[in-house]
Amino acid sequence: MDHTVTSSAEPALIALDWGTSSLRGFLMDGEAGILAERASAHGIQNLPQPGPAGFEAALAGLCGDWLDAYPSLPVVAGGMVGSAQGWVEAPYVATPADAATLAGHAARVKTAAGRVIPIAPGVLHDAPDGIPDVMRGEEIQIAGALAENADWARNACVAMPGTHSKWVRVADGRITGFSSYMTGELFAVLKTHSLLGRLMPADREASPEDEDEAFAIGIRAAQAAGPGDLPHQLFATRTLGLTKRLPAESLAHYLSGLLIGHELRSGLAALRTEFPADTPLLLIGDPRLCRRYTRGLAGFGVTPTAQLGNTAPRGLFQFAAAAGLLPSAAASAGPAVTASITSAP
Amino acid sequence: MDHTVTSSAEPALIALDWGTSSLRGFLMDGEAGILAERASAHGIQNLPQPGPAGFEAALAGLCGDWLDAYPSLPVVAGGMVGSAQGWVEAPYVATPADAATLAGHAARVKTAAGRVIPIAPGVLHDAPDGIPDVMRGEEIQIAGALAENADWARNACVAMPGTHSKWVRVADGRITGFSSYMTGELFAVLKTHSLLGRLMPADREASPEDEDEAFAIGIRAAQAAGPGDLPHQLFATRTLGLTKRLPAESLAHYLSGLLIGHELRSGLAALRTEFPADTPLLLIGDPRLCRRYTRGLAGFGVTPTAQLGNTAPRGLFQFAAAAGLLPSAAASAGPAVTASITSAP
Repeated sequence: MDHTVTSSAEPALIALDWGTSSLRGFLMDGEAGILAERASAHGIQNLPQPGPAGFEAALAGLCGDWLDAYPSLPVVAGGMVGSAQGWVEAPYVATPADAATLAGHAARVKTAAGRVIPIAPGVLHDAPDGIPDVMRGEEIQIAGALAENADWARNACVAMPGTHSKWVRVADGRITGFSSYMTGELFAVLKTHSLLGRLMPADREASPEDEDEAFAIGIRAAQAAGPGDLPHQLFATRTLGLTKRLPAESLAHYLSGLLIGHELRSGLAALRTEFPADTPLLLIGDPRLCRRYTRGLAGFGVTPTAQLGNTAPRGLFQFAAAAGLLPSAAASAGPAVTASITSAP
Repeated sequence: MDHTVTSSAEPALIALDWGTSSLRGFLMDGEAGILAERASAHGIQNLPQPGPAGFEAALAGLCGDWLDAYPSLPVVAGGMVGSAQGWVEAPYVATPADAATLAGHAARVKTAAGRVIPIAPGVLHDAPDGIPDVMRGEEIQIAGALAENADWARNACVAMPGTHSKWVRVADGRITGFSSYMTGELFAVLKTHSLLGRLMPADREASPEDEDEAFAIGIRAAQAAGPGDLPHQLFATRTLGLTKRLPAESLAHYLSGLLIGHELRSGLAALRTEFPADTPLLLIGDPRLCRRYTRGLAGFGVTPTAQLGNTAPRGLFQFAAAAGLLPSAAASAGPAVTASITSAP
């Protein structure tokens, strides 16, 4: 993928969003505008060769020409590249955390060509119940989202659907707490490896109406659930299929609604009890998944304040600015740079 | 395995407990005593050859000599052998159901030698929430348990820990309702196929003290859970390991406590709200697993009334009696035939 945006602006930053399964590079100008972007499958678990040389090779493969053309341009990175399995480990920083905290605790790696790349740390939250929680990569997306709107920076709840969804509390520009939910991984593991997937056909899709209905049944089951009921309600994915109360093609959508519904039930309970009234609820994530969450939220009578696209480049820009790698004017909040911000219906 | 019990009693029944992964045969006398028992790995998913001939071969392999020695002895079977993937399908019967209901809806298969074997059906319960639930095999164990104690037959809650645990309501000698929990399968699938298993060492065991502590932390987390919190609490299996708050060897025990705790939370809530006060709580299942549940129940301040061993042979005997295959006197409730019934501590 190589999208080059026509612009007369000068490049000011090479930003790397480096995850488990993909590497994305952004050539950015001094106002957080994206001049060009590229992606490869060279996530940290899929490098072209093992060890540090694999990271070098993946980086050179994706944007060696940028590095050559702009030898003095700063390069920053965030995501799993800073994990224990990454290029260099950037240990978690504790909440509360903002872009300045991330910059102050960045790890640094020096390339063979002598370029120093700061890598953002993840964030650790110690919940009052004594159970710690961690994120790595989402803190960069949050920094990007908050740069887009000063109201959100003051106070917001950010729901980030995914393999390990995050519900993040933001106050005074900082991440003050968060909870992870294994929703996406539970869905994938149960569908692929448990009895529940056996009745799901691999070669047929539910009609949109059947999909909606099965998803809604899952959401309603979650709304009716008492504490501890999920392991029982999961089994219904099988019995609804065995008894043909739901078409086989719909079973995955019941399971999806049930799991997302449980996450929403828990996340919204925290939103209602632990956040100020009228706290904006933002959704950040894959657009298709966000639509699913928006449908689920509607079942709870909740409309998200906004659904954001990929805020990682903007977050990496904020991280670079906080690290002193950009002219100081660039660090201030400007207009939204992603075209993908949309108001929720 | 071949245990032959010295007895002068005459054989009256060959009872087959035929599950997914094992086949157990019992030579029983006219008072439900076990004269001999045998087991093989020829469960319905592991037959010596495909199709009906595989069932014939497995049966002949396990107890061909019994069949030859007692050509007129009745043979009955229960468990997954009656499922859609079994020898012949015995479709589910609806609650309420007792041994007579099972006998009245038995499927029958005729062996090559001309012997007719009644196979017990499973049971389907239509819960008030519109979600159906099913069991197959447990209904036989329940019939066996109720034959051991007339008080339990009148009113009991039977918890059956396992891959798909069952919490069963018994009233007036019949199964009147039940809920399945995917607890055992969730544990296995998450440990083997999810991120949660990655930090669990395959080659080291927790000390008994560490195991107890981690299990108790999981139970307490379940006790503190609000609706929908499980997908978040599961993630703590990872974060407790990442942050070294729990030794890696303990993580599986936290996960076990968390999942069992959720099942207990839900099952006990139903016991308290939907059953008469002072309803006996019986545990039936693998003794090691039952010990885990007993420890979990203690965290909830609950002591099970009794823990039973393998009640399937006695249940198959009740099924055979209800089917009219035994002298009528044999169908009455007698003393406990399994030596494994123990009072809980």
